[in-house]
Amino acid sequence: MPEKSDFTHFTDFTVRDYECDLQGVVNNSVYQHYLEHARHLFLKSHNIDFAALSARKIFLVVVRAELDYKRSLKPGDTFWVGSQIERISRLKFAFHQAICRYPDHELILRAKVIGTGLNANGRPEIPEEVEAVLIS
Amino acid sequence: MPEKSDFTHFTDFTVRDYECDLQGVVNNSVYQHYLEHARHLFLKSHNIDFAALSARKIFLVVVRAELDYKRSLKPGDTFWVGSQIERISRLKFAFHQAICRYPDHELILRAKVIGTGLNANGRPEIPEEVEAVLIS
Amino acid sequence: MPEKSDFTHFTDFTVRDYECDLQGVVNNSVYQHYLEHARHLFLKSHNIDFAALSARKIFLVVVRAELDYKRSLKPGDTFWVGSQIERISRLKFAFHQAICRYPDHELILRAKVIGTGLNANGRPEIPEEVEAVLIS
Amino acid sequence: MPEKSDFTHFTDFTVRDYECDLQGVVNNSVYQHYLEHARHLFLKSHNIDFAALSARKIFLVVVRAELDYKRSLKPGDTFWVGSQIERISRLKFAFHQAICRYPDHELILRAKVIGTGLNANGRPEIPEEVEAVLIS
Repeated sequence: MPEKSDFTHFTDFTVRDYECDLQGVVNNSVYQHYLEHARHLFLKSHNIDFAALSARKIFLVVVRAELDYKRSLKPGDTFWVGSQIERISRLKFAFHQAICRYPDHELILRAKVIGTGLNANGRPEIPEEVEAVLIS
Repeated sequence: MPEKSDFTHFTDFTVRDYECDLQGVVNNSVYQHYLEHARHLFLKSHNIDFAALSARKIFLVVVRAELDYKRSLKPGDTFWVGSQIERISRLKFAFHQAICRYPDHELILRAKVIGTGLNANGRPEIPEEVEAVLIS
Repeated sequence: MPEKSDFTHFTDFTVRDYECDLQGVVNNSVYQHYLEHARHLFLKSHNIDFAALSARKIFLVVVRAELDYKRSLKPGDTFWVGSQIERISRLKFAFHQAICRYPDHELILRAKVIGTGLNANGRPEIPEEVEAVLIS
Repeated sequence: MPEKSDFTHFTDFTVRDYECDLQGVVNNSVYQHYLEHARHLFLKSHNIDFAALSARKIFLVVVRAELDYKRSLKPGDTFWVGSQIERISRLKFAFHQAICRYPDHELILRAKVIGTGLNANGRPEIPEEVEAVLIS
């Protein structure tokens, strides 16, 4: 079980019915939407705007995702996504994330999402704004 | 411009970056997600659970949607969806909905979504829970 | 019932399971995906590339959509989308579209999608490539 | 580079513009849609219908996904998804999948998706239809 103390950023969500598939639970791919939105809010909390970076042709990209599905989310469920970032090499950082359901904080999904940056020339480079977060 | 007084139910949203397409704005189809989620919360505020009804093979279905796109939503925008319901015939009801952006309440989209119900035998019938809302 | 002769462009699709929601049928919003993809292939058949236009900041945008849902698509269904374009005013064109299921060509959805263009200055203007299609 | 001979099932796709996000490339989460659709067609080629199983409350579920993103898909790209299945324990099987772009077969994404089954009582059990494929 992840502890809240494992993460420095939290986002609350409610399952929307359209996110559920014919099995009546949230579709596998939707979790990546939750995780992505939580990462972008994490960045925003550090004054990094993913969309604004993209508009300047500076792209943060995912190079690997590991997703462990523990339980399913159902219509109406509320949950939080916890996020933390860690540098793992000169050009790569990892987001550690967990999705836990209210009110019992049961673990729904655990994820490690490895990313890098591409500068305006299309070359691997972590933007300085992100560097600042990795150092702190 | 729609007035807040035109609606009896409101839901707040924030644009998520993954909802934006290659034009950099929210994709046309995503507005139907917002509207559907707002309708389901409207129903829930009247103790009608769309997913629970569906599990009992009672289906609320859309028969016609009219969507007027006025402006685009962009990454990070926050907005409200206002919803109101009206009976339009023995077997049909209409949701009148508007999407307005914070903080200026500018109209982004107006919609009329006509629906009906199918009972567990697959025949058109408005579920009694919804009848109760239409009468009130 | 629409006739195939009502349209000049056709696209074949197969329902993908992830497009179905907790009612076990294709979610309402997904039809706009089908229709959009069919319109973009219609345009491509006239050598108009929606993504390339967008990259030049020339945006084709939807201003109104009218969707009549007649029947539901189910997992595994195959269907065609027929599309035709018509000029309706100096700055607006309408796509008339229908979704029909194989093998019986039963009408699933009918749509009228009204669009316009925005030039690189953000002003309404139908791009010349689209003008050429509307004239022909 | 994956070889075509690593896989026993192939599905062709074309990128649809609505699958691209504000970076102008296919959104990370969409690859899971491609992979899921390819897996379901793989199963269908063995006469296993995911939706029909689900209707009988027999659920095939993902327990872990590892996705290596190598390159981005762009609007208009065509590509194939190759799939192969392998038993990895009494109750788990793994799909090995790759996404390669036409015409050069460049590797876009590699995935390992581990799944199991839940029987109508909600207990882990690989459905006999899937057992038959794992044995063969």
